[in-house]
Amino acid sequence: MTLVWFAAGARRWPDYREHLPEALAEAGVAARVVTKAPEPEAVDYIVFAPGGDVTDFTPYRRAKAVLSLWAGVERIVGNTSLTQPLCRMVDPALTEGMLDWVTGHVLRHHLDLDRWIRHEPGWHQIVPPLARERTVAVLGLGELGAACATALAGLRFRTLGWSRSPKALPDVETHHGEASLEAVLRQAEIVVTLLPATPETDNLMDARRLGWLPKHAVLLNPGRGTLIDDEALLAALDEGRLGHATLDVFRVEPLPDGHPFRSHPRITVTPHIAAETRPASASRVIAENIRRGEAGEPFLHLVDRRRGY
Amino acid sequence: MTLVWFAAGARRWPDYREHLPEALAEAGVAARVVTKAPEPEAVDYIVFAPGGDVTDFTPYRRAKAVLSLWAGVERIVGNTSLTQPLCRMVDPALTEGMLDWVTGHVLRHHLDLDRWIRHEPGWHQIVPPLARERTVAVLGLGELGAACATALAGLRFRTLGWSRSPKALPDVETHHGEASLEAVLRQAEIVVTLLPATPETDNLMDARRLGWLPKHAVLLNPGRGTLIDDEALLAALDEGRLGHATLDVFRVEPLPDGHPFRSHPRITVTPHIAAETRPASASRVIAENIRRGEAGEPFLHLVDRRRGY
Repeated sequence: MTLVWFAAGARRWPDYREHLPEALAEAGVAARVVTKAPEPEAVDYIVFAPGGDVTDFTPYRRAKAVLSLWAGVERIVGNTSLTQPLCRMVDPALTEGMLDWVTGHVLRHHLDLDRWIRHEPGWHQIVPPLARERTVAVLGLGELGAACATALAGLRFRTLGWSRSPKALPDVETHHGEASLEAVLRQAEIVVTLLPATPETDNLMDARRLGWLPKHAVLLNPGRGTLIDDEALLAALDEGRLGHATLDVFRVEPLPDGHPFRSHPRITVTPHIAAETRPASASRVIAENIRRGEAGEPFLHLVDRRRGY
Repeated sequence: MTLVWFAAGARRWPDYREHLPEALAEAGVAARVVTKAPEPEAVDYIVFAPGGDVTDFTPYRRAKAVLSLWAGVERIVGNTSLTQPLCRMVDPALTEGMLDWVTGHVLRHHLDLDRWIRHEPGWHQIVPPLARERTVAVLGLGELGAACATALAGLRFRTLGWSRSPKALPDVETHHGEASLEAVLRQAEIVVTLLPATPETDNLMDARRLGWLPKHAVLLNPGRGTLIDDEALLAALDEGRLGHATLDVFRVEPLPDGHPFRSHPRITVTPHIAAETRPASASRVIAENIRRGEAGEPFLHLVDRRRGY
């Protein structure tokens, strides 16, 4: 009997209580899922999320893998007590939620919906350009970024994609490497940041790079709070160089009520809802990895510690 | 030399002055375009829009066709002096503009963006359902409705389509005929009305049919103002049965400043911008029909007077 320790925190357990055992049974794994810390030697798999029940992984050296409920693993990847294989969450429902958020906010800014939602008086027939006449850039072409860039191209936006290493996507004009970032940003009327949080991406959108964006460009950040230099963003907005920023992730969460982003007329805050892990589909991903571990097959979504994701 | 009379109004001419002659030349038609009313006997084609320069078509009996700049022809189709072939505008750019508007507003309501645009305080992680968990219905599956239903299905919405006569669309659950309308509306969390204005569609969304919608459903009308019973809509919103209405077309346009739709907290008004005819692509459609007329080929988008569209 395989022992799975759900160490992702008591408040998350109710969402997984039914889904996880069901998914394990469906995957054909004879497993027992526990929430109370078991005898360390007995643990086969640890289901993990930041703020959960484990920070020191040393006693669990026998465990075959640590399975993250989150796509972003920056809060665990540097934990030196963690020597077991670490797997990220790649939840198809999480990708779909991100697609909804990104396409929704891109279309909102493309069509300037805020103007009408705020009951603009008069009858000013300001016809927006067509999607094909609008350039959108997606920075980061991993699982989420690639899906979003493809969806935006499907909505007929002129879509640029940028990543560290070369990537090819149908209908997306892809670029890679530091040297090409300026050319991409200089064209981007709407830019979506979907990179992982790593030392290299910290403050990616700093004063210099924000300055490369066309005047009145819009920044959407559903990726990681650390991608943005907050002070530089506020300055660019206040000086009227940048048109708007819509942010779902922050350096400190929950974003405090008094934070300058909260009341800024050119900032929209959404409370880290762009891509929620959904328990039903996430449970199936966890169960599949446990099945693989038990069958001696390679794990899915294994984290490369050196790269950090 | 073919004589084309641009009778769509002086204020529209500047948009077409360059595009129309260029499109005619590209289509290989030796034509002269005039804006001042010519000798009636000399006119080969009339380019028309409501509020333009012609209401009595009797003198132009020699003209080979009247070519509408607008997709909706309800303001001309009943004109008994018009005996010439009448063609609607089916502008690919107009379709694309409609796709942007419809997908943008559907995603806006799906994600409840207004909440965040209005700076909701706190940190309430209200995660919306996925698009696949949301049912959207498109009423009318003509050129525009079919394109919108297909695009919504492509965004993973559960998409229902309803039309007068049977239609099949990939990934869209289609229904037809009066008898099936109730079943469609009873499931529609978001309903998009894209029917032509005809006597049969007048007040299509009346009190009874609005009452079939699920509580808190959202109505999007980018079609025609006459599709909606305005009083019934206001009542349904005021009683909290309907969640919201976003309207682009009205019985009277421009919508007067004091109109109750203007300030209603559950109504968003956009000033008839969902689907603008775009001069460059519309000119190519007009030119192609003139080429066909001159070559003795059948016209595109010929209006069926009996049906009214």
